[in-house]
Amino acid sequence: METDTSGFGPYKLVSREYKPEDTLISVGKSIIGSPQFHVIAGPCAVESRAQLLETAWAVKEAGATFLRGGAFKPRSSPYSFQGLGEEGLKLLAEAREETGLPVVTEVMDVRDVELVASYVDIIQIGARNMQNYFLLKEVSRLEKPIILKRGQSATLEEWLLAAEYVLDGGNWQVILCERGIRTFEKYTRNTLDLNAVPALKNISHLPVFVDPSHGTGRWELVTPMAKAALAAGADGIIVEVHPCPVKAFSDGEQSLTIKKFGKMMTELKKMAKVLDRVMPIE
Amino acid sequence: METDTSGFGPYKLVSREYKPEDTLISVGKSIIGSPQFHVIAGPCAVESRAQLLETAWAVKEAGATFLRGGAFKPRSSPYSFQGLGEEGLKLLAEAREETGLPVVTEVMDVRDVELVASYVDIIQIGARNMQNYFLLKEVSRLEKPIILKRGQSATLEEWLLAAEYVLDGGNWQVILCERGIRTFEKYTRNTLDLNAVPALKNISHLPVFVDPSHGTGRWELVTPMAKAALAAGADGIIVEVHPCPVKAFSDGEQSLTIKKFGKMMTELKKMAKVLDRVMPIE
Amino acid sequence: METDTSGFGPYKLVSREYKPEDTLISVGKSIIGSPQFHVIAGPCAVESRAQLLETAWAVKEAGATFLRGGAFKPRSSPYSFQGLGEEGLKLLAEAREETGLPVVTEVMDVRDVELVASYVDIIQIGARNMQNYFLLKEVSRLEKPIILKRGQSATLEEWLLAAEYVLDGGNWQVILCERGIRTFEKYTRNTLDLNAVPALKNISHLPVFVDPSHGTGRWELVTPMAKAALAAGADGIIVEVHPCPVKAFSDGEQSLTIKKFGKMMTELKKMAKVLDRVMPIE
Amino acid sequence: METDTSGFGPYKLVSREYKPEDTLISVGKSIIGSPQFHVIAGPCAVESRAQLLETAWAVKEAGATFLRGGAFKPRSSPYSFQGLGEEGLKLLAEAREETGLPVVTEVMDVRDVELVASYVDIIQIGARNMQNYFLLKEVSRLEKPIILKRGQSATLEEWLLAAEYVLDGGNWQVILCERGIRTFEKYTRNTLDLNAVPALKNISHLPVFVDPSHGTGRWELVTPMAKAALAAGADGIIVEVHPCPVKAFSDGEQSLTIKKFGKMMTELKKMAKVLDRVMPIE
Repeated sequence: METDTSGFGPYKLVSREYKPEDTLISVGKSIIGSPQFHVIAGPCAVESRAQLLETAWAVKEAGATFLRGGAFKPRSSPYSFQGLGEEGLKLLAEAREETGLPVVTEVMDVRDVELVASYVDIIQIGARNMQNYFLLKEVSRLEKPIILKRGQSATLEEWLLAAEYVLDGGNWQVILCERGIRTFEKYTRNTLDLNAVPALKNISHLPVFVDPSHGTGRWELVTPMAKAALAAGADGIIVEVHPCPVKAFSDGEQSLTIKKFGKMMTELKKMAKVLDRVMPIE
Repeated sequence: METDTSGFGPYKLVSREYKPEDTLISVGKSIIGSPQFHVIAGPCAVESRAQLLETAWAVKEAGATFLRGGAFKPRSSPYSFQGLGEEGLKLLAEAREETGLPVVTEVMDVRDVELVASYVDIIQIGARNMQNYFLLKEVSRLEKPIILKRGQSATLEEWLLAAEYVLDGGNWQVILCERGIRTFEKYTRNTLDLNAVPALKNISHLPVFVDPSHGTGRWELVTPMAKAALAAGADGIIVEVHPCPVKAFSDGEQSLTIKKFGKMMTELKKMAKVLDRVMPIE
Repeated sequence: METDTSGFGPYKLVSREYKPEDTLISVGKSIIGSPQFHVIAGPCAVESRAQLLETAWAVKEAGATFLRGGAFKPRSSPYSFQGLGEEGLKLLAEAREETGLPVVTEVMDVRDVELVASYVDIIQIGARNMQNYFLLKEVSRLEKPIILKRGQSATLEEWLLAAEYVLDGGNWQVILCERGIRTFEKYTRNTLDLNAVPALKNISHLPVFVDPSHGTGRWELVTPMAKAALAAGADGIIVEVHPCPVKAFSDGEQSLTIKKFGKMMTELKKMAKVLDRVMPIE
Repeated sequence: METDTSGFGPYKLVSREYKPEDTLISVGKSIIGSPQFHVIAGPCAVESRAQLLETAWAVKEAGATFLRGGAFKPRSSPYSFQGLGEEGLKLLAEAREETGLPVVTEVMDVRDVELVASYVDIIQIGARNMQNYFLLKEVSRLEKPIILKRGQSATLEEWLLAAEYVLDGGNWQVILCERGIRTFEKYTRNTLDLNAVPALKNISHLPVFVDPSHGTGRWELVTPMAKAALAAGADGIIVEVHPCPVKAFSDGEQSLTIKKFGKMMTELKKMAKVLDRVMPIE
């Protein structure tokens, strides 16, 4: 019952055997997958106009090239804050208008795909939906880049097969994002698996990002792991930043303050130079 | 931002503190969660009228009280058989008509919930969709029982919170189904976590089933683990049976033949007696 | 550099291909690996003469056929109780003298192997030492049965290879004991992997035991998992019992009281009959 | 029964609360734990005089400051090459004599501790022996630095408690070495957990090393992960290098050639400068 994937192993379109050269994804002036190293930053959830704009201006000034913010939030408990919904999307669009930063947000429901796509520049599929095949098929019809986060216990093979669904549906603009896997270790929220970065670069032509915020769950580990991601060969990172983490509606313990984010960016820029990666100049 | 769950820990409605007595779910003449021990059996995927009916009659004769069969199949690869879709649902309804067995199938897409509900008696949420919150909300509006399978790396807490979404939405007919978790062990496809059975029985009032087919991935382990599930206190099992496993479109290596299924049922019935569980008499 | 294991896969002597018939291990009147189902019971650690003897008489009366008790305790912290050492061995020998129960204890240090062997009937290699190859070689020279516990993250293959060290050294009296593996789940101390029981029975001729006390870490899960182990085909279990668990020096939360142990034994005996396993009659 | 660790949590001596300043370990001209970044390199196993000396000279020339080589090898199978034993120790001592590089090797048996200590400069406790408490106590009496590798499924807490055994016994010269943990991922041999590096730096004053060879099991991932380790804040790495990996007696697939090792060292030196770490100048 299997379609012929003739000699490409379990995946085909995503493999370097099928397409040896790196996939480049252009968004505005940025080219993801090129020597540019991109930082997507912003709050876990869009909470208010003021919170989003303050963060957007700050991360832009520090060198971030994309703004992130959740409008629809996947939450383990039905009693937790579920996001502002379309109101959040509107605030993201407004922040882009004001700052010029392209925006990234997550879509969770197949019925929201067109709505979300009408507001944002890059659409994220979260870890919990990595194997939500109908959602993958839906975003495969878009002409927008997709960030496909790794499932909490997805093998590299399963993750690449999930990406294969999107490419097979016609959308080749897929960015893989490592965000920590589930292990026995309790000190960190997840175990950020940086092995995945060089491994994916060998197997696939797709750009690879890293999310050290979810990957560690502790703000004090974010900067060292962001630097490690850059050193391991990632094409960018996605980082949670909040003007006041202790008051955040979600994920405060893993969010950087604006000040700490700025310090991290300075360190990344110093490293980028010796690693032949390009970052915006201050 | 959290709703008051006043002293119930992370979950509320699903907890024994909130509702001490066992939840009973009636389907036809069966009462799930009672001393009855139920066996849901059938092929991984509905492949054809002949395959489904042959299996249905055979499992009924051996004592199964429900028929399972996949119409929409979650498959890691886009190139694998994806199920017959509505045609499969029609065949399930026909099999119920003929054999009198209530039928169970999985729904994956929020847009298919009403369609699937119009054909089957129990709706399954698969492991990959355990934290697909929009799907959980959609089935929470139904007046049909839901089998909620455990995610591959879901903690008991996360699993119960997923169930909480369904109860909170108004549907209290939720059956939890352990189907194996992901570990380092490679010999088995998954590691069936039978600890979960008595643990859930302590924490929650909901019925608990076990799927030894996915939980082990090897047909030769299905019978011993089905017996272990019964001994551990499960309210039922869900088992893959195929008239000719080597020709199955999916999961052949973990499917029992009709003959082996019959043998397993005989052994379960002998055990049920000394464990004060009720199974249909031959 | 590999010795020829000619067609036996990674392991040789432990495999059913090499030796199809079940290995039987005689200790006193007991034959481990036969249809007899054996219960090894006793305190985590030998704490005092009174504690050990009270427990020994009680578990014997309930039908246990072996007494366990730790003299040398592997403890994560150097500040935790490390066991009574040789004094504990003497108390075990005295308890055997009084009750007639053969005794089981763990050895951790190669230099203690002869000492321990001079006092007890079965020697246990604990999970932390499963790949302590010098210790394995040392016990391989004994003419005493060895209980080889599974390492916390050992695959079945690694575990069987550890057993292979003992058989290769000349000691074929090896009992494999599943005691829970390490997973992401936090509710239980470990995840008891009962899949291992039928899997090992297929691959190997060695007897297989299960330790539901360490495997769950919660006394309220011990009885259901002990029953599940029997149903899955185990040849016996090893269970922690303490006259007063809340006062135990170690592992109190996973120890059964004498009363609960008696109740569990009654349930196991009822099950044993329909599973063609033999247990002592009350 | 617990000794008072008065407000230090589970561990005491290893914690930053107890000793805020970084522990420095002097070996020859090197100071481990200082701004120096150290590379310990050499073959998995000492195979012959020629193999060891060729590797020693080559890694020294490239900037390694220590030579590693296994004389006693922990092997899953009793039929695999077990190391040259004391002959291997003599070759290590000879290689030090010739090249001036201090040497590192593993000890597995408590009875070999004095012998091994008489030959080498740093003693390694391998992952399989991390909780071999008698071995920890034995090396705690030495006046030599100990590399304590993380167990395959050891939490940070358990690992630090294992180190506590050594400090509590009187030896404060302990270097922690992350070497990959066991997860569900099959592409890599282990999952190198770089989160551990900044986490340990926060919790403890002990130096932290990383082993990207065992941590990935694939030579093509070693260089990116070595760079990531440096970026994450490690004090050094331990890397397997072999003149001819395909002919290695063990671990060939994860060993760098001499040429690839040289290339990696050049990249690490470039990075070290911008990270304020000191490496030997070419």
